[in-house]
Amino acid sequence: MDLKELGEFGLIERIKEAVGGAPEGVLGIGDDCAVLPQAGGMETLVTTDMLVEGSHFLRDDIPARLLGWKSAAVNFSDIAAMGGRPVGSFLSLGLPRGLDTEWMDGFTAGYRECSDYCGAPLLGGDTTTSQAGICINVTVLGECASGRSRKRSDAVPGDLVCVTGPLGDSGGGLQVILKGVERDAAAGALVARHYRPVPRVREGMALAATPGVHSMMDISDGIASDLRHILKASGTGAEIRTADIPLSAELRQVCARQGWDALDLALTGGEDYELLFTMAPGTEPTVTYYVIGRITEGRDLVWVGSDRDYLGFRHF
Amino acid sequence: MDLKELGEFGLIERIKEAVGGAPEGVLGIGDDCAVLPQAGGMETLVTTDMLVEGSHFLRDDIPARLLGWKSAAVNFSDIAAMGGRPVGSFLSLGLPRGLDTEWMDGFTAGYRECSDYCGAPLLGGDTTTSQAGICINVTVLGECASGRSRKRSDAVPGDLVCVTGPLGDSGGGLQVILKGVERDAAAGALVARHYRPVPRVREGMALAATPGVHSMMDISDGIASDLRHILKASGTGAEIRTADIPLSAELRQVCARQGWDALDLALTGGEDYELLFTMAPGTEPTVTYYVIGRITEGRDLVWVGSDRDYLGFRHF
Repeated sequence: MDLKELGEFGLIERIKEAVGGAPEGVLGIGDDCAVLPQAGGMETLVTTDMLVEGSHFLRDDIPARLLGWKSAAVNFSDIAAMGGRPVGSFLSLGLPRGLDTEWMDGFTAGYRECSDYCGAPLLGGDTTTSQAGICINVTVLGECASGRSRKRSDAVPGDLVCVTGPLGDSGGGLQVILKGVERDAAAGALVARHYRPVPRVREGMALAATPGVHSMMDISDGIASDLRHILKASGTGAEIRTADIPLSAELRQVCARQGWDALDLALTGGEDYELLFTMAPGTEPTVTYYVIGRITEGRDLVWVGSDRDYLGFRHF
Repeated sequence: MDLKELGEFGLIERIKEAVGGAPEGVLGIGDDCAVLPQAGGMETLVTTDMLVEGSHFLRDDIPARLLGWKSAAVNFSDIAAMGGRPVGSFLSLGLPRGLDTEWMDGFTAGYRECSDYCGAPLLGGDTTTSQAGICINVTVLGECASGRSRKRSDAVPGDLVCVTGPLGDSGGGLQVILKGVERDAAAGALVARHYRPVPRVREGMALAATPGVHSMMDISDGIASDLRHILKASGTGAEIRTADIPLSAELRQVCARQGWDALDLALTGGEDYELLFTMAPGTEPTVTYYVIGRITEGRDLVWVGSDRDYLGFRHF
C-alpha cells in the first residue's frame, strides 16, 4: 500500500503501534512535545520538526535569513504550545553541493535571531551533504515545573475556546506569494507573517502559570484541523462562532480586493503559530486573547454562523 | 564561496561562530553530545544525526529494517560515547511519494529493535513528504549523574589509548557492497557489521563509572580522524602502535583474498561505532578493550610501525 493512502495521521498511528508506547510517567507521541520527568521537580519538553526543500519551501522563494528564522520558530512554537521555557536547540542540515556561504550565513543569522528572541541557544547538530534538496531538522528542548505543561487532552465541557491573535495572515501571505499578488503594505504584511511567524513563548509560559487554563496547542495546520486534535484527545466537542474569529485589517483588505474568503484562510490556512487554548469561564490570563467559542459535551465541531465545514492543511 | 571549500569542520566552526557559545554550565557544539544540567543532580545528554538517501545510503541497497536499526544505532552510539543511559528518541522522516507501507513497516521494525536493545523508546517525531529522497533525522536523549559524562577534552599525557573492539569491519563491509564481492561467511559478516553496528551503550556506561577513564568518543569517521578530535580538544598528541590495532579474522581473510589493506580500512574506514577512550595506566575497566597506544605531551599523532599518514572519512 502506498503511504499516501494512510495520510499523515494514519502513518503516525502506524509508527506508534510499531514502536510501542511510552513508559509510565512519560508523555510520548501525540502532543506538541514529549514530556519527560527530571529528578528535581522539573520536566523536560522535546519537539522536533523537519523542513524539506520543495515540500515546505522553495529555495529561490524564501530568503535564507527568513528560512533560518522559520526553521527555529516552528519548533519554539511547540514548546510555547505546552507552556515551556525553551532551553536549547539542535540543528541538522542536509546541504546540496554548490550551496554558497552567503546562503549559509543568512540562514544561521536568521536562526540565531529567533533563538535569541526565544532565549535558547543552539547547542548541537549535524551537517551533511544531500544529493537532493536542502533538508533541515530542528529539535528544541524546553522545561517547566512538573505537572505544569499544558496538554491537548484536558479540555472540559464549558471551557471557553481562545486564540492569542488574528488567524489567516500566514495563509493569506502564502496566497500572495503563490499567486504573485502585488505586495502593497497590506499584502507585504501578510507575507511577513508567513515567512516570519513569532513563537508565542511568553504567552505560553503565562498561560501555563494560570490555573484555569486547561488545554493548549499551537496553530500550525489551521484551527479547523488543530482544534480537532484537542477535541479528540479530550473526548469533547466544540461550538465555534465564526463571527468571533479574529481577522487582521490587512487580511480583510487583501481578501476584499482579491475576492478571497478571509474566514476560510483563517480556519484552514495554517502556519499562524498563534496559541489555541481552552479555559474555565472567569479565568483571566495575563496575555492578549480572543474568545471564539466553547467546549461542548458532544463530539461534534460546529461552526456557528457558517453553513459549510472546514478542514485544515493535509501533509500527505 | 562554495560550502565545499569550507569542509565539514570549517562549516561547523562557521555555524558555531554565527550562533554564539553555550551558556555557563552547558556543553554545546563540539562533542558527541551536548550536556545540559538538570535540577536534581543529573545531566541530560542530547545528540542528533541526519541520514540522507544518496549520501548515506542507497534505497535499493540497504534493507529497510537494517536502515531503521542503523538510523537509531548511530545516535545511541553518541550517547554511549559519553557514558550516558539512553532515555528516549525522536524520529523525523521526509518520505518521497510512492514509498510503500512494507518499506515503512520494515524501517520501524528495525528502529524498534535497536531502541529495545538500547532500552529507550521512541517518544516523538515528525513525518513529512519529500520531493527528493528519503531523509531521516534522529535525536536521542540520555542522562547520567552530574559530572560523570566523559568528554573528548580530558585526555592526559601518559594515558593509554584504547578501543572496545576490532576496527575496519564496517569499512570492509562497505567495500564488499560497493565492489560486489561474493558474500561468503567472512564477507557477509563484514556487511552485517556495516549495516547493523551495535551501539556500545553498556560499555560506555561501565567506562563512565570507572574513575581512571579520562576521555571518550565513538568511532564514526575512522580512528585516524576521530582520535584527532580527542587530541585537539585535550591539547595533546598520541603514539599509536599500528600492530596493536585489533583486526577481526573476517577482515584479515577478506583483505588477504581481495588484496585490500586491512590496516587502512581499520584506521580510515569509519562506522565501526566502537568506543575510543583514554585512561590512566593501571585502570581496570570491566569491559573488553584493546590498548593501541598512549597519549603524549606533544601535538603530533604518530603511527608507530607504519611509514605513512592516515586520514579519516570526509563528509564534504
